[in-house]
Amino acid sequence: MELKYIYDNYKKLTDQKISIIARIRSNRQGKTVSFMVLNDGTYMDDLQVVYKPEILGYEDAKQARISSIVEITGILTLTPSRPQPFEIQASEIQLLDQAIEEYPLQKKEHSSEFLREISHLRARTRTFQAIFKVRSTAAYAIHKFFQEEKNFTYVTTPIITSNDAEGAGEEFIVTTTESKLNKDYVDDFFAKKANLTVSGQLNGEAFAQAFKNIYTFGPTFRAENSNTSKHAAEFWMIEPEVAFADINDNINLMKDMLVYVVKYLLEHNVKELTFLESQLESGLIEKITKMVNADFKVNTYEEVLKLLQQAIDNGHKFEENNIFFGLDLGTEHERYICEIVNKCPTFVTNYPKEIKSFYMKVNNDNKTVAAVDLLVPGIGELIGGSERESNYETLILRCKESGINPEDLYWYNNLRQYGFYKSAGFGLGFERLIMYVTGAANIRDVIPFPRTPKTLLY
Amino acid sequence: MELKYIYDNYKKLTDQKISIIARIRSNRQGKTVSFMVLNDGTYMDDLQVVYKPEILGYEDAKQARISSIVEITGILTLTPSRPQPFEIQASEIQLLDQAIEEYPLQKKEHSSEFLREISHLRARTRTFQAIFKVRSTAAYAIHKFFQEEKNFTYVTTPIITSNDAEGAGEEFIVTTTESKLNKDYVDDFFAKKANLTVSGQLNGEAFAQAFKNIYTFGPTFRAENSNTSKHAAEFWMIEPEVAFADINDNINLMKDMLVYVVKYLLEHNVKELTFLESQLESGLIEKITKMVNADFKVNTYEEVLKLLQQAIDNGHKFEENNIFFGLDLGTEHERYICEIVNKCPTFVTNYPKEIKSFYMKVNNDNKTVAAVDLLVPGIGELIGGSERESNYETLILRCKESGINPEDLYWYNNLRQYGFYKSAGFGLGFERLIMYVTGAANIRDVIPFPRTPKTLLY
Repeated sequence: MELKYIYDNYKKLTDQKISIIARIRSNRQGKTVSFMVLNDGTYMDDLQVVYKPEILGYEDAKQARISSIVEITGILTLTPSRPQPFEIQASEIQLLDQAIEEYPLQKKEHSSEFLREISHLRARTRTFQAIFKVRSTAAYAIHKFFQEEKNFTYVTTPIITSNDAEGAGEEFIVTTTESKLNKDYVDDFFAKKANLTVSGQLNGEAFAQAFKNIYTFGPTFRAENSNTSKHAAEFWMIEPEVAFADINDNINLMKDMLVYVVKYLLEHNVKELTFLESQLESGLIEKITKMVNADFKVNTYEEVLKLLQQAIDNGHKFEENNIFFGLDLGTEHERYICEIVNKCPTFVTNYPKEIKSFYMKVNNDNKTVAAVDLLVPGIGELIGGSERESNYETLILRCKESGINPEDLYWYNNLRQYGFYKSAGFGLGFERLIMYVTGAANIRDVIPFPRTPKTLLY
Repeated sequence: MELKYIYDNYKKLTDQKISIIARIRSNRQGKTVSFMVLNDGTYMDDLQVVYKPEILGYEDAKQARISSIVEITGILTLTPSRPQPFEIQASEIQLLDQAIEEYPLQKKEHSSEFLREISHLRARTRTFQAIFKVRSTAAYAIHKFFQEEKNFTYVTTPIITSNDAEGAGEEFIVTTTESKLNKDYVDDFFAKKANLTVSGQLNGEAFAQAFKNIYTFGPTFRAENSNTSKHAAEFWMIEPEVAFADINDNINLMKDMLVYVVKYLLEHNVKELTFLESQLESGLIEKITKMVNADFKVNTYEEVLKLLQQAIDNGHKFEENNIFFGLDLGTEHERYICEIVNKCPTFVTNYPKEIKSFYMKVNNDNKTVAAVDLLVPGIGELIGGSERESNYETLILRCKESGINPEDLYWYNNLRQYGFYKSAGFGLGFERLIMYVTGAANIRDVIPFPRTPKTLLY
C-alpha cells in the first residue's frame, strides 16, 4: 500500500491489517512501547507506527536508523485524541535496508544553504517534498489548462539553436570540438555556431501560424554571471502564442491561465501549501486565494509614471525617484503600483519601445509598443508578453535598431510575408511562479538540481 | 469563432451567421460562384466557403493568394450530398493580410526532404498538422497518466550536467569561453566541464527515493555523428522511476502507460490518425488498436536466443545469424520475436550484463541483469528499462567494469547507503513513440525543428 492510499481510505481501513514499505523519519524507544515515523513520499503527512518488544522483527526495528527502509505490517487504529487521525499498531517490522550512520539528513534543522549542497537528498525533507510536489502539480495544471480548457497545441521548441539574436551575449555555446583554434565552427557538430536557447518564442510564433493556439513548456538558459536569489542559468518557461490575437486577448489569456493554475493548486495541494505557509511565508494561502478572486486592473505605462510621480510628490521615497518616459520600472515601482495603488494584480501596457524587444508591435504613436507585463503583489513582474509586430518593413527596421542583423532571423521575419494577421503571446518563468505560490525566496530552492555560476552539482 | 468550435457545433449553427479568421488553403474562381478552402489550425478538416461577385470584399477576395489571412462572414449551410458536412455561404470576405506570390508552400505535392528545409512552415500542411497535433496530445496523455492515474511526481532533471559517465563520449559540451587553450575549464561558467544531459535517470532515481513515484519528461542529447532516420541530436525522453519496485512492477507500468497513451490518442485524435493512415502508413489505426488490446508476452533473453536459433535451424535467414549469449539483438531479431513468434508486444528480460548499463541490477546468476526491453511489432525495441542495482559494493564494481570512475558518481552510488530498497524505471524515447503512432518513417518528421549533424536551421 502507498501512504496516500492509506490516508485517502483510512476510515475504510480502520481496525484492518495493512502493510506498507516506507522510509524512517524518526525511531524512538519508549519504556513499554516504541514509535516510528514513516513516509514513503506519496503524501505530505507521516505515518505513525507504534511497536512493542513482542512483535516480529523487534530487534532489527529498534536499531533501524533514520532513512532506513522498513516494511510495516499492523492494524490501523483511529486516534481521535491525537493530531494525526490514525496510527499503526505494528505486528511485524521488517528492516529492508539499514541506512549508514553518517546519513547527512539527521533529524534537526538544516539551513537552505546546506540543503542546496545535497540536492540529491533534500527532497526527502518535508519542505522540499512540498515545494517539488507543488512544482509537479503546477506543471500539470499548465498543460491541463492549455490542452483541455483551451485546445492549444503543445510545441517542443528546440533547445540547441543558431538564433543568438535575443540573448545579447548571455548564451551558452554548444560544441563538440574541445579545441577552438578553428573559430568558424566548420569542424563542429552542426558546422556552425550553436547556442542553448534563451526563449522558444520565435519558433513558437511559427507554429502559432499553423495551429493558431500553441504553447511551449521547456528549459531555457541564460549564461548571466549573476549570483542573485532570482537568477539561475537553467530554468523552465511557458510561452503561449496565439495567431489573430491582440494585446487584449493576451491579457485575458494571462489572467485565465494564472487563475486556473493557482486554483488547481488550492484544490489539489492544500496540505503542501499549508505546510509551506507554516515554514516559508505566513499568509501564503490568503495571498494566493486573494489573487484568484481579485479584479485585475490595467494601466498604461504612462499612467504608471503619473502614479509614481504623484507618490513621490506626496512624500513617498523610492530608491529610484527619477521618473521619466523610458524608465525601466524597478521591482519597487511595480510592487508599489499593484500593492499600494491598485491593491490587486495589474497589467501594465504600452511600454516605450526602447526598453522592449524588437519583435513587439510598434503602436501608432511610434514611441510605445503593445507590450504587457503582469505585476503581482508581493513579487512585481510575474509575466511579460506582447502583441507582435506584424508589418514586415517595421520589423526589419526594429531588428536593425536593436542591433540585430535581419538576415540572421530571415525565417522569422518572413513569416510576415506569408499571410500574417496579428499574433500575441507571453512568457512565464515557471520558477518565478513556483516561488510565488510556495513562498520560497530563492530560485535555487524551487529547482530540483539548480545551475548557477560555478555551481554544477549532480 | 474557431474552426474546431464550428465543427463541434455545426448542427446548432445551421443557417446561422458565423464569422471566422483563417488562412487560405485554396481559392478558385468558378463561372458564377467561387470557392475558398480555409483552415485556422484548430481542426484537421477544412472549411469550405462559397462566395459570389455580389458579396462585400469580392474584389480583394478573388485575388487573395494561398496562405493569405481572411475574415469570412456568412451563413453555415448543411451539405448532406458533399463529403464535408457543411459549407459557408459568404456574405463578406475581408482580406486581412495578403501573402506574397513566392510563398513556398503552394498547392502541390512536396517531398519530405523539401519540407524539412522549411520546418518553420511545414506544420501548415495537413500531414504535419496531424503529426504535431498527435505529438501534443501524446505528451499531454503521458502527463495525465502519471499525474491523474498514478499520483507520480513530475521532476525536471537538469539539462546541463557534469555527469559524463553514461554518454560514452557522445556528449555536447556547454561552455561560455570561446577559447579552449585553457583546458581545465577554470574560467568557464561552471568552472568545470559541463555537458548536455544524455538521460535524466540518475537524477530521477534520487527523487524516486524521496517521492517513491516520479517521472521526467524533457529533452536529452546525443552528439552521435550518424545520419539515420532514427537518430536526432536532440530528442525528448520520458523516464519514470519507482522506489521499492522490481522488474515486474516495471513491466506492468510500461504496459499501463503505453496502453493508456495510445487509447487516449484513439479517443482524441481519430481525425489526425485517419489522415496519417491515408498518407503515411496503411493499417496504422488497426496496428495501434491491436496493440492496445493485445496480450503482452514476457520472454527471457535466453528464451529469445533459443527461438532465434530454432528459426535459423528451420531455414529463416537473418542478416546476423550468429546467435550467442552476449549478442546485442538487432531490430530484425526483435521484430521476428514479436511479429512472427509471439505476434504481440513482447517484454524481453534478463540480458547479459556485458551489453547493458552499469546501474542495472545484477541477477543471482551473476551473468545477467534485471533489464527489460519492450519489443513492439513494426518497430522492435520501443522502451528499455531495468531494476536498479541496490547493493553499494556491486554498483561500485559495475562502475569500474564499465570504465566509470565511481568518484564521478559518488552521489548516485551513495544513495545505496542511505536506505535503499529496490528501484526500477524505464526510458521511452518520445519521438520513437510518435513515429510508431503516426507512421512517420523519419525522426526528422516528428520533431518541430529537428537537429542532426551539420543541420541547425531555425
